[in-house]
Amino acid sequence: MSVSDRTVRVALLGCGTVGAEVVRLLGEQADDLTARVGARIEIVGIAVRRLGRERGPLPVDAGLFTTDALGLVKRDDVDVVVEVVGGIEPARTWLVEALRAGKSVVTANKALLAEDGAALHDAAAEGGADLYYEASVAGAIPLLRPLRESLHGDRITRVTGIVNGTTNFILSSMDATGAGFTEALEEATELGYAEADPTADVDAFDAAAKAAILASLAFHSRVTAADVHREGMTAVTASDVASAKEMGCTIKLLCIAERGPDASGRESVAVRVHPAMIPRSHPLASVGDAFNAVFVEAEAAGQLMFYGRGAGGAPTASAVLGDVVAVARNKLAGTRAASESNYAHLPIRPMGEAMTRYHISLDVADRRGVLATVAGVFAKHEVSIATVRQSGRADDAVLVIVTHGAPDAALAATVEELRGLDIVRSIASVLRVEGGA
Amino acid sequence: MSVSDRTVRVALLGCGTVGAEVVRLLGEQADDLTARVGARIEIVGIAVRRLGRERGPLPVDAGLFTTDALGLVKRDDVDVVVEVVGGIEPARTWLVEALRAGKSVVTANKALLAEDGAALHDAAAEGGADLYYEASVAGAIPLLRPLRESLHGDRITRVTGIVNGTTNFILSSMDATGAGFTEALEEATELGYAEADPTADVDAFDAAAKAAILASLAFHSRVTAADVHREGMTAVTASDVASAKEMGCTIKLLCIAERGPDASGRESVAVRVHPAMIPRSHPLASVGDAFNAVFVEAEAAGQLMFYGRGAGGAPTASAVLGDVVAVARNKLAGTRAASESNYAHLPIRPMGEAMTRYHISLDVADRRGVLATVAGVFAKHEVSIATVRQSGRADDAVLVIVTHGAPDAALAATVEELRGLDIVRSIASVLRVEGGA
Repeated sequence: MSVSDRTVRVALLGCGTVGAEVVRLLGEQADDLTARVGARIEIVGIAVRRLGRERGPLPVDAGLFTTDALGLVKRDDVDVVVEVVGGIEPARTWLVEALRAGKSVVTANKALLAEDGAALHDAAAEGGADLYYEASVAGAIPLLRPLRESLHGDRITRVTGIVNGTTNFILSSMDATGAGFTEALEEATELGYAEADPTADVDAFDAAAKAAILASLAFHSRVTAADVHREGMTAVTASDVASAKEMGCTIKLLCIAERGPDASGRESVAVRVHPAMIPRSHPLASVGDAFNAVFVEAEAAGQLMFYGRGAGGAPTASAVLGDVVAVARNKLAGTRAASESNYAHLPIRPMGEAMTRYHISLDVADRRGVLATVAGVFAKHEVSIATVRQSGRADDAVLVIVTHGAPDAALAATVEELRGLDIVRSIASVLRVEGGA
Repeated sequence: MSVSDRTVRVALLGCGTVGAEVVRLLGEQADDLTARVGARIEIVGIAVRRLGRERGPLPVDAGLFTTDALGLVKRDDVDVVVEVVGGIEPARTWLVEALRAGKSVVTANKALLAEDGAALHDAAAEGGADLYYEASVAGAIPLLRPLRESLHGDRITRVTGIVNGTTNFILSSMDATGAGFTEALEEATELGYAEADPTADVDAFDAAAKAAILASLAFHSRVTAADVHREGMTAVTASDVASAKEMGCTIKLLCIAERGPDASGRESVAVRVHPAMIPRSHPLASVGDAFNAVFVEAEAAGQLMFYGRGAGGAPTASAVLGDVVAVARNKLAGTRAASESNYAHLPIRPMGEAMTRYHISLDVADRRGVLATVAGVFAKHEVSIATVRQSGRADDAVLVIVTHGAPDAALAATVEELRGLDIVRSIASVLRVEGGA
């Protein structure tokens, strides 16, 4: 693609909260951006669903707006396509069209990347175009570029992230106030942290999409949302949070991607999203409010953490613009960034083979031999117990058991068998424990 | 530079802790690196001070070692020069030679970059070569690349960092155990966190060099170590640490680079390194042990933090290799990264004009009117008081005063005048307060 007259021409698809902020910042920081890029960055068209909607005072000509996104993408005078619409279609059609034609793409579309990133990467390779998507995971935090560039001299072993601000706000609030899930969700909705329909957040669809993107980058393999074991956090109770506190832990909705051997000893990747206890001393534990953070473990680098705002118009626009600057520089230099790195082709290890630890609270009959019986069930499934705490009252008692690491399937089977014992009155809570507690 | 037979040939200058780890990792991860870069990375020479020194079992031919670093740099078959020797000369001569000849340079040399980065950047521009130095600040943490790339669509307002692991270990230990500086330093020395001569660390020369590098990148201006106001942390006492605790704070050695107007209203940069109290709720407060972390505030992105190991052979080598992968890719693509961004040319604001807050403990005579007299001194210097705590016993009292933000010169003048009052028996401690406490 030629870049005419030292101007990089951008087509913007979508002008909601993030899009409007991109427009505003491009105007406000025009001189700085020109100095940094060595060329003007100019918006040549903005595709929206409906014209004439009130969008506040944006520093662009009203004539730039169009409802024909595909037509805008196809225009010869477009160098870079920025997509902040979201969803699978029609975004995929637009971006594939742009990339095949050699236009660079900057997108915040985590759902599309997680479901069919392959379509985009393949189109980028075909068209020799750049595909950047920093804003798709953990909003403003410069995270994907470190993963796809800075850490390429190292071997990442594990990525553990708090990548959904809504659920982190809810869990932080439950931890701080002792509130239950429903109450904390209501507060989050009132404050604008949760949407009217919070399903994507609380059932962890959002976090699972981000987990797939992170796993793909960290392990040089294609991982999709369908590969991610997903458990939401609606079942976390005030009593779970209290149990975590007693253990010196807090509960977070974590996305975890790790490499390791599968049952046959073959190197593989396990990716999962679920609520888990982590010790308060862990750097992720103090990530409060709606903040995001991603903890990365690599063989040589050791432990790293990236922290910041995961959502919001301005933070997301910051990430989008950082990408726009990068692809604009590449355009001007007549080059492109390193393409998708998926050479490792690591297979996905099923959740049952992921090594996890469980924290289990049992209401049991206070009879002689109960602990022996319970311990026998763990032993039968080859699950080793780390700690047991027993508090008895009258004729019932509570057993709190924390295991050592074991395959998740063995732990789940242990819980199932415990549930069937007549000395177990109920299983008060089962939570995974992460972060080396 | 041509890259022969899809091999990128590296000259390594220095083979101490970091250099040996670079050699080891290049060998161990050779296949992965080849897959990521699209070419083999091969060490073609290693310059050392003395041959024949025991270096452990390194996966390279003994014939690669040479004492002629300059000769090695000048060899036609060298594409990339990696420098892990440190110090100003002869490193500067070697690197300028390499860059002018179009060879890419990866260096961890913070002292050289902070004292005369201009010589390196100018030579890189002249030779059309890449200059990468991720390992020079905060070791393994991918930080400089986010600053020089990811955040280029945003305007950074402030960078606050814990960038020296030795002093953070000492201060964390003082905070945890109540030990004094000398005792904590001894412990750090025994554990290998402090060198036999700890001057560069405890007198903050190391942190000041890193502050200059961070400020240059964050504010698109050339900042050198000489521009950094530097105060070491040897004067921090156990009693200061205890005072901080009472305030809900901890003491950290911080490097702070911020933009803002100078006395005449002109946009400028202030860069300083000194110990300061920060509230325990601040993300930097929980950075313990010898870890590093850098907190970045930007207009659109908001608050970001980068956390990880700041030193050590493997962590530093991880950063070096990430840079090697980047420059190797650029070589193969026949391109180079964006060059130095110093277009803003912001002037340095002197320390006296930096806006800071003080925490001052005074031993005063317990007489009527003491507080009025003391408050009058603050008012005279136009320093506004945020909180006063007074605890009296017999005929003396302790006044603990925390100010609002004011020019550092006004605060320093206030302290000087307080020192001269006859009702002030002694000034027990003066510490700056950062992080919005």
